Amino acid sequence: MAGGDNKKSEKKPKANVSGGGKKKEVKKETGLGLSFKKDENFGEWYSEVVVNGEMIEYYDISGCYIIRPWAMSIWEIMQTFFDAEIKKMKIKNCYFPLFVSPGVLEKEKDHIEGFAPEVAWVTKSGQSDLEVPIAIRPTSETVMYPYYSKWIRGHRDLPLKLNQWCNVVRWEFSNPTPFIRSREFLWQEGHTAFATKSEADTEVLDILELYRRIYEEFMAVPVIKGKKSELEKFAGGLYTTTVEAFVPNSGRGIQGATSHCLGQNFSNMFDITFENEKGEKAKAWQNSWAYTTRTIGVMVMVHGDDKGLVLPPKVASVQVIVIPVPYKDADTQGIFDACNATVETLSEAGIRAEADFRDNYSPGWKYSHFEMKGVPLRIEIGPKDLANNQVRAVRRDSGAKIDLPRASLVEQVKEILDKIQESLFEAAKQRRDACIQTVKTWDEFVEALGQRKMILAPWCDEVEVEKDVKARTKGEMGAAKSLCSPMEQPEMSEGTICFASGKPAKKWTYWGRSY
Amino acid sequence: MAGGDNKKSEKKPKANVSGGGKKKEVKKETGLGLSFKKDENFGEWYSEVVVNGEMIEYYDISGCYIIRPWAMSIWEIMQTFFDAEIKKMKIKNCYFPLFVSPGVLEKEKDHIEGFAPEVAWVTKSGQSDLEVPIAIRPTSETVMYPYYSKWIRGHRDLPLKLNQWCNVVRWEFSNPTPFIRSREFLWQEGHTAFATKSEADTEVLDILELYRRIYEEFMAVPVIKGKKSELEKFAGGLYTTTVEAFVPNSGRGIQGATSHCLGQNFSNMFDITFENEKGEKAKAWQNSWAYTTRTIGVMVMVHGDDKGLVLPPKVASVQVIVIPVPYKDADTQGIFDACNATVETLSEAGIRAEADFRDNYSPGWKYSHFEMKGVPLRIEIGPKDLANNQVRAVRRDSGAKIDLPRASLVEQVKEILDKIQESLFEAAKQRRDACIQTVKTWDEFVEALGQRKMILAPWCDEVEVEKDVKARTKGEMGAAKSLCSPMEQPEMSEGTICFASGKPAKKWTYWGRSY
Repeated sequence: MAGGDNKKSEKKPKANVSGGGKKKEVKKETGLGLSFKKDENFGEWYSEVVVNGEMIEYYDISGCYIIRPWAMSIWEIMQTFFDAEIKKMKIKNCYFPLFVSPGVLEKEKDHIEGFAPEVAWVTKSGQSDLEVPIAIRPTSETVMYPYYSKWIRGHRDLPLKLNQWCNVVRWEFSNPTPFIRSREFLWQEGHTAFATKSEADTEVLDILELYRRIYEEFMAVPVIKGKKSELEKFAGGLYTTTVEAFVPNSGRGIQGATSHCLGQNFSNMFDITFENEKGEKAKAWQNSWAYTTRTIGVMVMVHGDDKGLVLPPKVASVQVIVIPVPYKDADTQGIFDACNATVETLSEAGIRAEADFRDNYSPGWKYSHFEMKGVPLRIEIGPKDLANNQVRAVRRDSGAKIDLPRASLVEQVKEILDKIQESLFEAAKQRRDACIQTVKTWDEFVEALGQRKMILAPWCDEVEVEKDVKARTKGEMGAAKSLCSPMEQPEMSEGTICFASGKPAKKWTYWGRSY
Repeated sequence: MAGGDNKKSEKKPKANVSGGGKKKEVKKETGLGLSFKKDENFGEWYSEVVVNGEMIEYYDISGCYIIRPWAMSIWEIMQTFFDAEIKKMKIKNCYFPLFVSPGVLEKEKDHIEGFAPEVAWVTKSGQSDLEVPIAIRPTSETVMYPYYSKWIRGHRDLPLKLNQWCNVVRWEFSNPTPFIRSREFLWQEGHTAFATKSEADTEVLDILELYRRIYEEFMAVPVIKGKKSELEKFAGGLYTTTVEAFVPNSGRGIQGATSHCLGQNFSNMFDITFENEKGEKAKAWQNSWAYTTRTIGVMVMVHGDDKGLVLPPKVASVQVIVIPVPYKDADTQGIFDACNATVETLSEAGIRAEADFRDNYSPGWKYSHFEMKGVPLRIEIGPKDLANNQVRAVRRDSGAKIDLPRASLVEQVKEILDKIQESLFEAAKQRRDACIQTVKTWDEFVEALGQRKMILAPWCDEVEVEKDVKARTKGEMGAAKSLCSPMEQPEMSEGTICFASGKPAKKWTYWGRSY
């Protein structure tokens, strides 16, 4: 294995049914299930479900993964949504190089300190050594901003609002996990520059709202909008906002996507200045913001079950799978025709539907297969359905079975898909909310942490205190840290003190272990 | 400059008006023109036009370029077209890692010989050396095919048809040129596997037809469909088809995009086998095909003129620029309202239109600015137009001016845009055709090469003869090589002999210097 230096336990699924036995014909009736249960061995379950659900294939370089079409189509659906939204905001797409020269990379000190240990360096081409090693972008602030300096001269050049869809590389050594923590990942990164702080502040929140919508409206994953602590904010930035998700099974928070106000730190370092309307020289206010393929991993962790993936209808590339259930003495052709007609009717109504007519798999095998892949709704058509001019619909999320008259198929399927989307979100929210614990004292905090909670606590908002919390909670499971201070602050009665320091509390903050 | 090892003359534009003078307010009336003429100094003209047209910014690592929104939007328009077309062909998108381990990269000998000198190697992360250096993909055959071997087992797993949109890196040392030859570029790469050669053959041509459409229907650039010689085919493949463009100003052919049949060479090396319907083990037939951001460069080279870029309407992100032409005593507000109404009317009809209301630039400056950027149609609205309820339209390609009644605006603008698209193609085709020279003897060949022609000659189709042609034409301008043997072969009378070897000719083949 190449590049496997220092790597820690990368969990590869042990029983890889769909891709494991090389050159062995696919098993027909058995072996489709998962060998691990979500509640019993969450880590192994996750590794297995992303592979057996055909989202991911493990790659021969540790920490790198193959994103298969079943996952890529989810990424594309979100991309279509987000790209259209930012274009409405007059943000334009561009593409900056993958490579950064060391001088530029190291220009903003806090920033490079945050990224330096993870930077991959190209030192050779063919058989020759390069004169100077070249870094691969871990993020593109330092790649882009020398050119912002060049392009921005007068106030009329502002705002400058660019975005790119690309890959970035962070050569991390801790627990690589598909989608969640990988050495290369896909993302969009927006980089904007404004004349005033208030414009920058506004955009930070507009983007954060789009990130909330990606998680809540598309992925059906509840998130908390909040602000990161000084210790957890983006290296070199002014402040970082986040949509913070929580994975009940692991009891860990996860940074869903972040929208940073960089203030004038980078414009200072990279000399991004402009002549304002009064003819004075001023520094630009900058933002950067990104979401990554991690979104898909969070969705899998939150919704998946012991039968496999559970995809929210809005992001599923196949929303409805139609399966013929013929019997020996039945009108097989009639059933097949009804399946085809059903797919056609649904497709014409804009529903993503497919049928599986393969004759070497039984209906039962197909049920399990598409449950593993998380298709939101299954439609079965057998002789009885044909006779009654109906179809049988089975929900992936609840297993509920409903007979639908073919006459009102489109309206009812649409309604069911909407309900599934809604139920997934509501169920996820209930499970998440059940994990939230409000505490006021250190003892309560330690107890809640032991119970793997997402802990809301009054905090003095001091860096040293957060460092202290980390030090005092160090252990095999990993230390606790602040997740975010929610935008919607609960009321705080006068005289409330910090759970960790006993000093006067300034804000409610979520704490917990984290990915 | 980082990474500038061994690099040869990279032409950076000398007079970079739009981005040169740091912190200097944009010049208002002067300095918008190009300092080089297309016919006089083509190389410098090209470098300048891509920068001043705001497509490209030169980057501080040689051979890497920043693709600005004006060019990125063209890439996106083509991507939307091509992606939809291949999805109709049931090709699915995926994403494989950027990195390749050396063992895999080197598995197919001919293939790696073709790419080895250009491979960039990552040898360090942070301060630590990697155990094994890791290559950055120059193309993804060797990245993907070990997994094709895993996924393909029975005939029902075929065809397997995947595509990815990504960046690739080829650390070349010869003449980097924006879009045309860069060390990192964007492309799509399709990789498909079939049970039979005839399915593979068919797809090669279906994809080639899409590439033709990209060039001819979108870029308005005429291309010749043909087959590459043994010497010029894809390293490790069976045969390569190409759409070949020609740049009259440089007298060079340029490989527009290629669709390869890999035969069974890779399936042999990577053990991509399946059990066929008879229960026998068989090797898969494979294709790979790609087009890159080079398409944009070819388009600029073919259509641009001494005023700047000339964009075909189909790929221009702004098809119509509306410019108010107020006079001191005129109804300025009325003019502005008419401009806004014009943009709205055109936008509603699906035409990409914008207005430029900036008050710190004169109409004349704006005319030049949008001519530089190549906007296909300019609409001017002044007091007289307002009074006559008309607008003045000016074509970028021909400079022709037409007064359009506002009542029939949409139909007429659509018609003009169609005409521009058509005229650009026709004009480019005429210029290209004027460069094609048919020869039969070596002397004629040498003469035509001296005149920078695209030379059609009868050839014996032998590798040694092509090597010999290369050796005999070596010189400052670069050697001649075969460009392609056109799919549509002119008739060849019996007894025709090869222009270079005097042996019996087998096919008509285009020859010339090439990018």
